[in-house]
Amino acid sequence: TASGTPIWRHLSAKGRSMRVAALCGSFRKGSFNQALLDAAIAAAPGHGLEIVQGDISTFPLFSADYEADGWPPQVEEVRALVRSSDCLLLVTPEYNHGVPGPLKNAFDFLSRPVRDPTLFRRPMALMGASTGYMGTMRAQMAWRQICTFLKAPVFMEAEVTIAFAPKAFDEHGVLVDEKYRGVLDDYLEKLRVWLEDRCAV
Amino acid sequence: TASGTPIWRHLSAKGRSMRVAALCGSFRKGSFNQALLDAAIAAAPGHGLEIVQGDISTFPLFSADYEADGWPPQVEEVRALVRSSDCLLLVTPEYNHGVPGPLKNAFDFLSRPVRDPTLFRRPMALMGASTGYMGTMRAQMAWRQICTFLKAPVFMEAEVTIAFAPKAFDEHGVLVDEKYRGVLDDYLEKLRVWLEDRCAV
Amino acid sequence: TASGTPIWRHLSAKGRSMRVAALCGSFRKGSFNQALLDAAIAAAPGHGLEIVQGDISTFPLFSADYEADGWPPQVEEVRALVRSSDCLLLVTPEYNHGVPGPLKNAFDFLSRPVRDPTLFRRPMALMGASTGYMGTMRAQMAWRQICTFLKAPVFMEAEVTIAFAPKAFDEHGVLVDEKYRGVLDDYLEKLRVWLEDRCAV
Amino acid sequence: TASGTPIWRHLSAKGRSMRVAALCGSFRKGSFNQALLDAAIAAAPGHGLEIVQGDISTFPLFSADYEADGWPPQVEEVRALVRSSDCLLLVTPEYNHGVPGPLKNAFDFLSRPVRDPTLFRRPMALMGASTGYMGTMRAQMAWRQICTFLKAPVFMEAEVTIAFAPKAFDEHGVLVDEKYRGVLDDYLEKLRVWLEDRCAV
Repeated sequence: TASGTPIWRHLSAKGRSMRVAALCGSFRKGSFNQALLDAAIAAAPGHGLEIVQGDISTFPLFSADYEADGWPPQVEEVRALVRSSDCLLLVTPEYNHGVPGPLKNAFDFLSRPVRDPTLFRRPMALMGASTGYMGTMRAQMAWRQICTFLKAPVFMEAEVTIAFAPKAFDEHGVLVDEKYRGVLDDYLEKLRVWLEDRCAV
Repeated sequence: TASGTPIWRHLSAKGRSMRVAALCGSFRKGSFNQALLDAAIAAAPGHGLEIVQGDISTFPLFSADYEADGWPPQVEEVRALVRSSDCLLLVTPEYNHGVPGPLKNAFDFLSRPVRDPTLFRRPMALMGASTGYMGTMRAQMAWRQICTFLKAPVFMEAEVTIAFAPKAFDEHGVLVDEKYRGVLDDYLEKLRVWLEDRCAV
Repeated sequence: TASGTPIWRHLSAKGRSMRVAALCGSFRKGSFNQALLDAAIAAAPGHGLEIVQGDISTFPLFSADYEADGWPPQVEEVRALVRSSDCLLLVTPEYNHGVPGPLKNAFDFLSRPVRDPTLFRRPMALMGASTGYMGTMRAQMAWRQICTFLKAPVFMEAEVTIAFAPKAFDEHGVLVDEKYRGVLDDYLEKLRVWLEDRCAV
Repeated sequence: TASGTPIWRHLSAKGRSMRVAALCGSFRKGSFNQALLDAAIAAAPGHGLEIVQGDISTFPLFSADYEADGWPPQVEEVRALVRSSDCLLLVTPEYNHGVPGPLKNAFDFLSRPVRDPTLFRRPMALMGASTGYMGTMRAQMAWRQICTFLKAPVFMEAEVTIAFAPKAFDEHGVLVDEKYRGVLDDYLEKLRVWLEDRCAV
């Protein structure tokens, strides 16, 4: 907006679900992170949230030349989704102790041009699942640092860091671990409260 | 190798240049980071180094499914380059206070399968240029963390963090700033010494 | 408070200065960071802020045993100052690419017992000065990570990272660099707006 | 040394134990990190290592003025221990997602004056225990960043990150968890190999 106030500050939170755009950093078949996002999407309405996933798997590799040459249509589609949402949820695997390249690639696209409201000051949230015991904690820490550049507040009232993912999901990708289902429900409930508080004027 | 010793330990450093594979994280026309890499390539022989750039701009987005389905040929080409080198040099812009998505994407490809010798224990080096005053320091810090996963030692005897890049390069992309030319020469000299020391058996 | 809402949410921001408790991480005579804090204290009233420094130089080294044995009186004095403030400002040197030990020591004291409202959810702000060219950026990044544990939002609308400090301050410790004086004024103005926004109910 | 080569490069590794100086970041009675260090000291001789702990609990808070005024004797005692060792082992709790203030305080003392050989280029190693599930991973990451300033290589062939410490140690502070005992033995064995490799000329 002209005043610099992010658009979500002008929305009333009363009587509607909070809308969350979500991106998943892993594209492989049977991805635990996609399974985690699916579980979150399914559980969201019970917590006053609507989670809608954007498809970043067909993005080209980022180059700053796109800013002059025109953004790819698949980028613009995800951009519109994120802009119409109260929050961006990154469901992130951890690759080599860091953020996954493909998800950072999408993030770099959406962050331009500088101060574009798609990500600038956008409330952010993080989740992740890993086969090891750290549950993507290092990747999530790296994402928090990245979001500082965008002056984007990152949800920190709860965490979802699913460790030893093969034990937490069944062979159909359903999150069957009771403890983690509770963690996810608690996370979503606190996320909605946080978003409502931010959107209330 | 079968013993787990990285291949570069078996090479004699005597009487040959140290070979450095390089990847550039920015693809835009007129990229300052590409210009920096070009300056390093040109200066390298004067310091007993040979720097050869690999092309990562045509990589697809990473998916773990490639491990079963077969790696793309452009990935295998860069993989061969890195494996035949004494060191991998990442010339990295900083996007959103973090590593650039396209370069991390390439890195994620080259890191698989787990403990693949392309990156595992490979000596690494970092350089970067930015338009701001931090000179990609935050991105370089993030890369150091990432390399820990691969047990890959990262050169730390010198740093190249070119700040206010538009003042350091001329309109043809030549590094004309005298101070930074000296920084680059010092870096390359110390890099060769470090690599020779590592390769000496 | 009983409800877990931080006390600053119950204060009206109208008609009063925002109150900022400040801690300085360097104790040496002629410290640039103390000089920076002095400049901030002097400039604060012009921006609707009151900055009051707490003395952490006589704290003992932290041990968790103090929780059972009783907190030192000098810790309790600073704790009371911070609790009565709308924000905690850390004026931080950078030691060895990280947070300064003495300031982290004070922070560790103030953070206990777990969820103590002194730091838990307390709005935080960072400033720093260094003799080198990074201006304590790495230390400030480390502080941001630390504050995540406390669910404490860290001000990110502006930054004060004074590089080459010997040129910015005169021999009496006065911040004479015009550019940095402007940076400091801009920072304080935005900090007050941020705090007022947080305190408005 | 005059040539800048760290002193440990001049030592022969043949026929002697590698000597490790160790500092513990937690001072409380019954500390899990002290218990972990005790377990490491006891297991060390079986792996060709001698671990000797330095006492940092009586250090004053760091001030750069000590450089002119004279270092405290307890600092000099630990300095001598570290200088006579092949490696410095930091046994680190994690406080507020970061390094513990008292241990960083000791580290800041030992790092001065600039390029003092106590820490400069000294091989470093990390261990930690926590009551939570991350096992001090975030603190260890922060330490790695800190050591970069000192050009000090940090052991990365193995990790000791003891999570849920109350289950791993018995009421006498003995590391009774079989899995973690194996992790510790593997760590010490690989540490000796790494140090021997570094000391071999």
